[in-house]
Amino acid sequence: MDKVDSQAGKNVIDSLGGLSEDIGKYIIEFAFGDIYERDILDFKQREMITITSLLTQGDTAPQLRVHINGSLNVGLSREQIIETFIQAIPYVGFPKVLNAVTIAKEVFKARDDK
Amino acid sequence: MDKVDSQAGKNVIDSLGGLSEDIGKYIIEFAFGDIYERDILDFKQREMITITSLLTQGDTAPQLRVHINGSLNVGLSREQIIETFIQAIPYVGFPKVLNAVTIAKEVFKARDDK
Amino acid sequence: MDKVDSQAGKNVIDSLGGLSEDIGKYIIEFAFGDIYERDILDFKQREMITITSLLTQGDTAPQLRVHINGSLNVGLSREQIIETFIQAIPYVGFPKVLNAVTIAKEVFKARDDK
Amino acid sequence: MDKVDSQAGKNVIDSLGGLSEDIGKYIIEFAFGDIYERDILDFKQREMITITSLLTQGDTAPQLRVHINGSLNVGLSREQIIETFIQAIPYVGFPKVLNAVTIAKEVFKARDDK
Amino acid sequence: MDKVDSQAGKNVIDSLGGLSEDIGKYIIEFAFGDIYERDILDFKQREMITITSLLTQGDTAPQLRVHINGSLNVGLSREQIIETFIQAIPYVGFPKVLNAVTIAKEVFKARDDK
Amino acid sequence: MDKVDSQAGKNVIDSLGGLSEDIGKYIIEFAFGDIYERDILDFKQREMITITSLLTQGDTAPQLRVHINGSLNVGLSREQIIETFIQAIPYVGFPKVLNAVTIAKEVFKARDDK
Repeated sequence: MDKVDSQAGKNVIDSLGGLSEDIGKYIIEFAFGDIYERDILDFKQREMITITSLLTQGDTAPQLRVHINGSLNVGLSREQIIETFIQAIPYVGFPKVLNAVTIAKEVFKARDDK
Repeated sequence: MDKVDSQAGKNVIDSLGGLSEDIGKYIIEFAFGDIYERDILDFKQREMITITSLLTQGDTAPQLRVHINGSLNVGLSREQIIETFIQAIPYVGFPKVLNAVTIAKEVFKARDDK
Repeated sequence: MDKVDSQAGKNVIDSLGGLSEDIGKYIIEFAFGDIYERDILDFKQREMITITSLLTQGDTAPQLRVHINGSLNVGLSREQIIETFIQAIPYVGFPKVLNAVTIAKEVFKARDDK
Repeated sequence: MDKVDSQAGKNVIDSLGGLSEDIGKYIIEFAFGDIYERDILDFKQREMITITSLLTQGDTAPQLRVHINGSLNVGLSREQIIETFIQAIPYVGFPKVLNAVTIAKEVFKARDDK
Repeated sequence: MDKVDSQAGKNVIDSLGGLSEDIGKYIIEFAFGDIYERDILDFKQREMITITSLLTQGDTAPQLRVHINGSLNVGLSREQIIETFIQAIPYVGFPKVLNAVTIAKEVFKARDDK
Repeated sequence: MDKVDSQAGKNVIDSLGGLSEDIGKYIIEFAFGDIYERDILDFKQREMITITSLLTQGDTAPQLRVHINGSLNVGLSREQIIETFIQAIPYVGFPKVLNAVTIAKEVFKARDDK
């Protein structure tokens, strides 16, 4: 597992706060181990798919925060992330896209403030 | 509008069967005109985002059919399409991914049978 | 209960096929009895809300069929029904609206063919 | 665009915080320009459809806030807004309706406190 | 109505803050009266179904809080509640499960702090 | 893996039709291996959770068919399955419950016809 993705994974698992170590284990082994490590698509494409899926299902603010950071970590630009959200407008409508842009703004600002 | 996308757009609009020409006009002008013609992402990335969003929201079999064809038309491989669906498993679970794979199978078979 | 709504309710209950009479009873008593019989909104407004909610949640083809018929029965025009779906485009995107239009076309055709 | 709707639109666009002026432009041009300006339904009906769609999809608190205000601005009464939510109960269940009522309470109180 | 369920019901109704007493009445009469009082399934099974449905639809944090408390009140253990969420992973993916676990942690902590 | 669950798993995997053996492998290993084999909940409880989650998310007819059969195979009665769906009414509304009941009817009839 690449150290950038590993960080994204750790952030999610830390949010579990030790309540269920098994869920954290499944995320590490299945989501980041089995799935992210596959061929055919690179990390940029995988993160683009992930943030699209999170945006589309809604009620995923904490996960979008992790994976917008993850998207930047694997090399997607801020413009590409926002453009990914814009591409979703005809398929999901404006509200979910606006919610995702709001979270992206917070993530971008937090990185600028560091 | 590229002729490949134009075909995908026409398929959707034909399915409206003349009932509401305005919806067809909005799809042509807004979805395929304003959004697809933007910079920053290429057509392959845009179709990858589109099929991810359709898979995630569910109940989109006709649109997935159009855009799996569209994905192939703009140059995504069958392996990349299936891999896009696999990447979504940790975020949406198996049922929606299985539904999308079922439609992809139909699309691939229809193209082989031509 | 107005005879038009009663017909819409019977259609749904018939689809239960006697498997669970209790669900049918709850639909009659709660949905059509308690809710539809309330003041403040008229039947046209209530059906407009209902078809919007069904369109938005997706995977509701049988219920949309019942309530597009119900909408016509209580006095909404075909143009108002399609316009209701068009108003939803910015909030849900095109796929769900196209699905609802497809069902409306079937309902309109079935009534023309009678 | 009516000045009341214009205000509702501006609220949404301000929330974009300058990050993506294009999304704001699409909302102004497509959602408020193309769609709201159409015939057949009036602004009260359009807002009733909008808040029903937002309630039904969930995770739309900021947009519901804008459009509950918009609903009042175009002439829907508080009772009609709450009654719209009640009409949705049989189709979406209680949780989403309770969430929408909670936001309506906040909006009503904010207007009373002015 | 069992006093434990009555408490869960009261919590929801109090959150309505008197705005719409009718919604509270429907929750008491229909959800807790008609449905919870039926035979065939016991309260533990009913709460397990309820928290699964709330987790799956998303954007139900306040209702999950009420029904995780309700689950404990009718005798489900903390381990059974977390295990219910884990069983949902293959069907809904990790994000919704992580959201539900986060709320469960808050509920468990609030009960420990009393 | 119990032979009853194994059959349910095989049905899903067969539906993949050899297109992506990896998805089938993940279902076997992760969904049926890792998750179903855990302690704390028994197979009846796990199937009850599964059909509730499938009903709630919608657009899962093929998976509901597999898991209504699976529910019967591990010992849930037809009455308990229908009652599970009824318990979901206050949380998801009638349409999704009616869809699930329709599929249950088909499954029950197919078993009676054998």
